[in-house]
Amino acid sequence: MNAARLTGQVRVVGTGLLGTSIGLGLRALGLDVALANRSPAALRLAIDYGAGRAAAPGDDPSIIVVAVAPDSTAAIVAQELEAYPSALVTDVASVKGAILQELTDLGADVSRYLGSHPMAGRERGGAMSARADLFLGRPWVLTPHAGTTNEQFFALENLAVDLGGVPVRMTPEEHDRGVALISHAPQVVASLLAARLLGAAETVPSLAGQGLRDTTRIAASDPELWIQILGANAAPVAEVLRAFRDDLDGVIAALDDPEAPGAPTRLATALARGNEGVARIPGKHGRDERYATLVVQVADAPGELARLLTEIGEEGVNMEDLRLEHSPGAQVGFAEIAVLPEKSHQLAEALTARGWSLAEDRR
Amino acid sequence: MNAARLTGQVRVVGTGLLGTSIGLGLRALGLDVALANRSPAALRLAIDYGAGRAAAPGDDPSIIVVAVAPDSTAAIVAQELEAYPSALVTDVASVKGAILQELTDLGADVSRYLGSHPMAGRERGGAMSARADLFLGRPWVLTPHAGTTNEQFFALENLAVDLGGVPVRMTPEEHDRGVALISHAPQVVASLLAARLLGAAETVPSLAGQGLRDTTRIAASDPELWIQILGANAAPVAEVLRAFRDDLDGVIAALDDPEAPGAPTRLATALARGNEGVARIPGKHGRDERYATLVVQVADAPGELARLLTEIGEEGVNMEDLRLEHSPGAQVGFAEIAVLPEKSHQLAEALTARGWSLAEDRR
Repeated sequence: MNAARLTGQVRVVGTGLLGTSIGLGLRALGLDVALANRSPAALRLAIDYGAGRAAAPGDDPSIIVVAVAPDSTAAIVAQELEAYPSALVTDVASVKGAILQELTDLGADVSRYLGSHPMAGRERGGAMSARADLFLGRPWVLTPHAGTTNEQFFALENLAVDLGGVPVRMTPEEHDRGVALISHAPQVVASLLAARLLGAAETVPSLAGQGLRDTTRIAASDPELWIQILGANAAPVAEVLRAFRDDLDGVIAALDDPEAPGAPTRLATALARGNEGVARIPGKHGRDERYATLVVQVADAPGELARLLTEIGEEGVNMEDLRLEHSPGAQVGFAEIAVLPEKSHQLAEALTARGWSLAEDRR
Repeated sequence: MNAARLTGQVRVVGTGLLGTSIGLGLRALGLDVALANRSPAALRLAIDYGAGRAAAPGDDPSIIVVAVAPDSTAAIVAQELEAYPSALVTDVASVKGAILQELTDLGADVSRYLGSHPMAGRERGGAMSARADLFLGRPWVLTPHAGTTNEQFFALENLAVDLGGVPVRMTPEEHDRGVALISHAPQVVASLLAARLLGAAETVPSLAGQGLRDTTRIAASDPELWIQILGANAAPVAEVLRAFRDDLDGVIAALDDPEAPGAPTRLATALARGNEGVARIPGKHGRDERYATLVVQVADAPGELARLLTEIGEEGVNMEDLRLEHSPGAQVGFAEIAVLPEKSHQLAEALTARGWSLAEDRR
């Protein structure tokens, strides 16, 4: 096990998904993690999970991570700054400018506050869903302000790196505009699109394919959390939505008179720009780009998949990920096997020699 | 193998993804399938795939399926109606009203035309992606008009059922409004949302999580196909987009003055309606609702997953689907195993007894 870059005690306030995951990750590195939560039951759960010990009088944390709801974050950060006058305090909320502003308004000592936002989460919240590897390979945005020292920045960067995150430096304003674009505006769009289904006849939603499911999946998010986020980042989100609305008006005008000169071009441009935009998202197909994928045809018979995996093991190749594509009732399925690119050719040859049929990549 | 409900010869015109998949499915039932394609190379490929034989002079199909691009569909249907004066002709295009109208304008014998739309597809088109089970469990919309007889309707219903589809009866207008809502408007929304990324700084798209990936995935669709679809279904799509735009204006107004009385309520309502809307989509989490899921913790060691699958086989339980959730570098992964609900409890107990750790359902 690697040693931690961080030294000293870490205090985590709030033991939901993020706080508990941070505790688990730091404990795995052998660090002393003191946990606090206003709910004793939630605190006990996180301790049981192995995320740390209960905070105690006399604790002297070097870093404090506030991982509570966005609308409580500034108040708790201010309390922590006051209670621990030598600690660096950070938070993990998904808005940054509003929290810094609120701290300034509260007269808090913001010279020891450095905001951050790990871009990691799960659909399901709570300590029960926490994982030590939640942050692995995910961006962790650090938002220094004019009063942040290099030493403070490096300390928080060490925390992010210790947890497997990839530090990204942005100003609070850059962060807020960025998440408005990649997270907050998409939430609004998905919610409004899903809401359109409410007027539909009973049979219509049952016609939905994977496209609608994907496009509206995040519409199932918790409204209470999102009112806080949207309220705290209102101006940047409104700006993105206004530009989106202007584009939408252009498409509606083209659809209102699809035979008019320029109308097909306007539709084509909107669709082509969508192609270009989605191409800017790294790993956009949800596949880990570090690996090569082999697609192996597997008969729908008991033990066939186990046999395949056993034989891959016999070839000495480590399988990094596996996905099974199988239509119920079909005679064959397809196992999509992710391996290191340099092993891909060797494994393909070995499996073919052993009688397996390899298919073209099916995505 | 079940006998086909259909009898007689089936002619398939167009051997892309849908036409080839239809041929494969019908051939598997032992039916005589005659294939036609204006490209001899594409035709040969579909024949090689086993989707049928080349059409020949003297063919006497009882049903003809036209599976070509939407903007060529009406012209080809009209040709087929004329060339085969006793056949029932259908198509599989994703708009229905415009095609019926165009056929009427062309003076075609629409009494033998019955439109349909199988709600199935893959991200990748072409004969290479065809599958006999493409339509399995998917809705297949049939759109009878005033001149359609029961006999014609039942014949086409038999085709859909033979291919594993679930027939759904709608008027052409109901169909077009329905797909505007569940497919065409979402395509526009996803494209416009993805296009917003074009203005962003380099680092911003790299912060994207699964939410943005899902919301914009279909923005990667083929513009050429979608210009045809949107042009042919312009009015219903514009109607959905206009209602969406009105909702969006309400959210933008609330964000422009988030402290105003009623603004938080307006945001809350938009988000809550999104919750309700997405709940109307059956199987909305992309998981097959017919199965129960067990989540088993699997150590990241060679052969562990193979051992798990072997032991599941030894318990005599058939695994219906498998997904591996595994963060690179993590010490454990999670195998999500779909089984028949009535087997779930028994398997959970058996695996626990064999020393496996079961986790709560992680989605």
